[in-house]
Amino acid sequence: MSGFALHPRLAADTHPVAKLALCQVLLAKDARFPWLILVPQRAGLSELTDLDCAERGLLFDEIAAASGALRRLFAPDRINVAAIGNIVAQLHIHVVARTRSDPAWPGPVWGHGAATAYKQSVLEQRIADLLAVLKGSG
Amino acid sequence: MSGFALHPRLAADTHPVAKLALCQVLLAKDARFPWLILVPQRAGLSELTDLDCAERGLLFDEIAAASGALRRLFAPDRINVAAIGNIVAQLHIHVVARTRSDPAWPGPVWGHGAATAYKQSVLEQRIADLLAVLKGSG
Repeated sequence: MSGFALHPRLAADTHPVAKLALCQVLLAKDARFPWLILVPQRAGLSELTDLDCAERGLLFDEIAAASGALRRLFAPDRINVAAIGNIVAQLHIHVVARTRSDPAWPGPVWGHGAATAYKQSVLEQRIADLLAVLKGSG
Repeated sequence: MSGFALHPRLAADTHPVAKLALCQVLLAKDARFPWLILVPQRAGLSELTDLDCAERGLLFDEIAAASGALRRLFAPDRINVAAIGNIVAQLHIHVVARTRSDPAWPGPVWGHGAATAYKQSVLEQRIADLLAVLKGSG
């Protein structure tokens, strides 16, 4: 992880949840959607294709762990997984639990209106729940 | 590939480009963006996590091939990769070449306005170019 530093914009827009073998797991500061962001802790990564073969396997495992945690906690209709990075170039992967009743369905969450802040008590419980399930599945 | 059939909505919204080891490569019917869609040719897949370990490796290779083809042909500023599927549940992965001058930048392409049809001559050249580069990189 030599030289890796989380991009300040990603740090500002998220709450830290956990560190896995490859990725930091962050929770987006948007209470409208259960929305995780995975950031591989390697310096200089920008696109998915910058990952080497072992890292690709790890990333897939961690996407599966994040998806599984969201499924267990929120019983979503769909998990959206995306590497976009048009605004922040540092490689990061969105893993978002979507339900047919959420405010952006069936459109994407990215760029959809303004984020809603978490209440502190909800935030603390959500992070604790995510951490418990992620560690249990890890 | 027993039992696999491309979802009619995906078939209607795309032009076929190539068949790789795992995925069909389709070109979205939207001339605003060089936009590929990869569909793993396995029956019953819905989420990324439905893929087995070997298929995950193949999918990553084919995302890399599609990304490489788009980079070579269009020199984009960014490649967006996403598995969303809120409308069509059959597993499909978007691989989209984005440029700072495109009409949706920096927002996502999904749900952004109405698609623009390709002119037939442009479409034929685009598919021929993509096929040549994909087969060359395969």
